[in-house]
Amino acid sequence: MINVAVMGYGTVGSGVVEVLRTNGELINERAQDVINVKYVLDLRDFPGDPVEEILTHDFETIVNDAEVDIVVETMGGIEPAYTFVKRCLEAGKNVATSNKALVAKHGAELLEIARDRSINFMFEASVGGGIPIIRALNSSLTADRIDEVTGILNGTTNYMLTKMFFESADYDEVLKEAQEKGYAERNPEADVEGHDACRKIAILTSLIAGQHVDFETIHTEGITKITTEDMKYAKTMDMAIKLLASSKREGESFSAIVAPMLLSKNHPLCNVNDVFNAIFVRGNMLGDAMFYGSGAGKLPTASAVVADVVDAAKHLHRTVVTRWESNTLELVPNADAKRRFFVRIHGEESVLKSRVDEVFGQVEFVKADDVEGEFAVITGEMTEAEYAQKAEEMPEVVKMIRMAD
Amino acid sequence: MINVAVMGYGTVGSGVVEVLRTNGELINERAQDVINVKYVLDLRDFPGDPVEEILTHDFETIVNDAEVDIVVETMGGIEPAYTFVKRCLEAGKNVATSNKALVAKHGAELLEIARDRSINFMFEASVGGGIPIIRALNSSLTADRIDEVTGILNGTTNYMLTKMFFESADYDEVLKEAQEKGYAERNPEADVEGHDACRKIAILTSLIAGQHVDFETIHTEGITKITTEDMKYAKTMDMAIKLLASSKREGESFSAIVAPMLLSKNHPLCNVNDVFNAIFVRGNMLGDAMFYGSGAGKLPTASAVVADVVDAAKHLHRTVVTRWESNTLELVPNADAKRRFFVRIHGEESVLKSRVDEVFGQVEFVKADDVEGEFAVITGEMTEAEYAQKAEEMPEVVKMIRMAD
Repeated sequence: MINVAVMGYGTVGSGVVEVLRTNGELINERAQDVINVKYVLDLRDFPGDPVEEILTHDFETIVNDAEVDIVVETMGGIEPAYTFVKRCLEAGKNVATSNKALVAKHGAELLEIARDRSINFMFEASVGGGIPIIRALNSSLTADRIDEVTGILNGTTNYMLTKMFFESADYDEVLKEAQEKGYAERNPEADVEGHDACRKIAILTSLIAGQHVDFETIHTEGITKITTEDMKYAKTMDMAIKLLASSKREGESFSAIVAPMLLSKNHPLCNVNDVFNAIFVRGNMLGDAMFYGSGAGKLPTASAVVADVVDAAKHLHRTVVTRWESNTLELVPNADAKRRFFVRIHGEESVLKSRVDEVFGQVEFVKADDVEGEFAVITGEMTEAEYAQKAEEMPEVVKMIRMAD
Repeated sequence: MINVAVMGYGTVGSGVVEVLRTNGELINERAQDVINVKYVLDLRDFPGDPVEEILTHDFETIVNDAEVDIVVETMGGIEPAYTFVKRCLEAGKNVATSNKALVAKHGAELLEIARDRSINFMFEASVGGGIPIIRALNSSLTADRIDEVTGILNGTTNYMLTKMFFESADYDEVLKEAQEKGYAERNPEADVEGHDACRKIAILTSLIAGQHVDFETIHTEGITKITTEDMKYAKTMDMAIKLLASSKREGESFSAIVAPMLLSKNHPLCNVNDVFNAIFVRGNMLGDAMFYGSGAGKLPTASAVVADVVDAAKHLHRTVVTRWESNTLELVPNADAKRRFFVRIHGEESVLKSRVDEVFGQVEFVKADDVEGEFAVITGEMTEAEYAQKAEEMPEVVKMIRMAD
């Protein structure tokens, strides 16, 4: 029998208990042992809930119980999660977590502690909810040098952008609706400003680089400035606007960004709508691949946590290889990243054309049917710094959205 | 050092050598050992090729060399692949294969031999080329009961159907083009008649059922009867026609089929075009997920084989859990499978409406703009047997295509 303690009986934690109860027989068969939830840790009481009998308020009970083999951390946030997870690992217990903030910040250190003790620190659920992207990068795509990972990693903003695109609804309207449906929090900042996606792409970049990526160094923009006019242009161009979190290999380093981008219909991420997430991966042998699924939600996320529990059960005293060293990788500065830019310009195309040509060089002009008093251009490839300089010379620029290739 | 022998130096086999050479350093790091190709087995000679020095024509050299830890089988076909693979496993050597015919027919037996010797028989490349679907089902989605697997598992036919849809080209024309581009063989039967997809869905069904599925019991239709008229209807309905290979859980068994089906724009498989493959998976906790990528091609397929080599290297004397027992699962007969049917009917809707209503019950009428002398209906849900009986009562029926849900 393998004893599990679940720390945090919120949405994901209660989902973990539910998944283990619903699919217990199948899960035991796959783990080749009986998975038993011995403790649930939470500050609250749950009178009448089946976990009442195994509920504890005291972390020490768990960390000091030599019978506990695997600890699930679904509390969220940095503290006390970090302290608890670290102490569990130091006590020789395998840990599975869904906590992206914890993994993005302390992943390298926690993996090292686990490696030193021949145990495991696993975090499949921290990125992409139920989508098995972490295990794919760690254990499946092992023959490839991964050159790009680009994801739609936040379901809330993808739901909002989908609504704005298909229903021509404006930002405030869809935010309100997302909040009413429970897809967005009352304080939606972590989602709409891109912070959530930023932590997730930091984790994925760390894994493909094999070195630690500091999420605070990733240029991050949210979707708060996207308007119905932007969506009209996107439709005209037969493209979509998606909040992308992207890392691309540049020599020995990576260029990483989180920002809304224009994506052509041929890109596999373009048709990923509503609350779904997806991760596009490009390998130097594999070519292009994509992983799609529910990026959040109680049961999909819990399913990923339990898959980690099964994997940990199969490798109780044997570390599964995860390349993520603690030295910090210096990302390519965003100013040096090369791309094309979609630029909306106030005024008449006929009047401004020669100045646009002079400032931006060769561009493609775009006119959206029902957007008046302006036009737009798509520039050729240039660095972010070059773009910024050019845009300063052109005060008529009202909006820039990056083009994904 | 871990010694590998590659049996079969054709497209995939030479790809395996190329992947190991190109990404050797990274692969060794992940395998935590040096992967060395000690032998390449082929009946042919390759003068001037770097493998010349390690080339052997004699299988006995490989099977009798105690230093060979992992054997890669990329010969294809049942014999001599089956005999060679079996003897290698019996000699205690791990085997990785890309051979779908071999796996579909003898997978259960070969897995059992491997299990008995605490070694591995791996076959990631046998389904979906570079898409890591086997490892996802075996090692990632371990918390779920998988209720459905539906795939676009054949790149040749997907390329052809994509061309027929977007370019209104007819079947013979696109087949010729596919042959010229090397996407289709001179004898295209295995692809266009669905035999290739059938073996692949048999493998996937065996894995999710945990029991052996005989591919010969899966109802299989190809794309040879799909016409430009069918595509016109699909466009009218804002749907696509895809060759789907699908298995759905029905109580304790599965209902499996390979056939061209109409798929709505909202289905994640609908936008999978050209030679790409994708596999849609529905889990009882996970919900819907999809895996997308290159289903064939030298390097993507070789990438999957080498990922197996890395996994085998990490588990040289420890069997990775694969649920696929040798008892044969009796599939739900296709006659009992329930679905909706798209039916093209010769004649005037106004004249035939009352008879159609009488025969098929409640239906949805469809008229394609530029298809003359006929109309179509979409039936309600009924079994295949019920549909067949009704269609007999209506000699005006010219074509039936199944609806995917």
